[in-house]
Amino acid sequence: MCEANAYLIEGDDKNLIMEAVDTIEPDGDNLLICNIFGEQKVVKASIHSLSLVDHKIYLKG
Amino acid sequence: MCEANAYLIEGDDKNLIMEAVDTIEPDGDNLLICNIFGEQKVVKASIHSLSLVDHKIYLKG
Repeated sequence: MCEANAYLIEGDDKNLIMEAVDTIEPDGDNLLICNIFGEQKVVKASIHSLSLVDHKIYLKG
Repeated sequence: MCEANAYLIEGDDKNLIMEAVDTIEPDGDNLLICNIFGEQKVVKASIHSLSLVDHKIYLKG
């Protein structure tokens, strides 16, 4: 599978907020994040960077 | 492999700008996009949305 884990950059920390992310869509000032299990989260952030071979998505508030 | 194709949203169009993207990093107002073949592009855009199971990354200028 080609999903990735989403981490929120907070200062020097990168905190895992959702595993196995499929889609991320803008939703006003927020992001709507959905994973392959049908779970959803809304996070006040934007997509900062990607490292897909490492399965990592970095978000920043 | 878990790379994806990067498309630039321009009006109603979504134009493919790089296949097999591994990493995207901010570079000032631009994005530095690198694929698994070692190719690099700098694009004046931000990461708009993701659909990873479909192997798609959408960028917006």
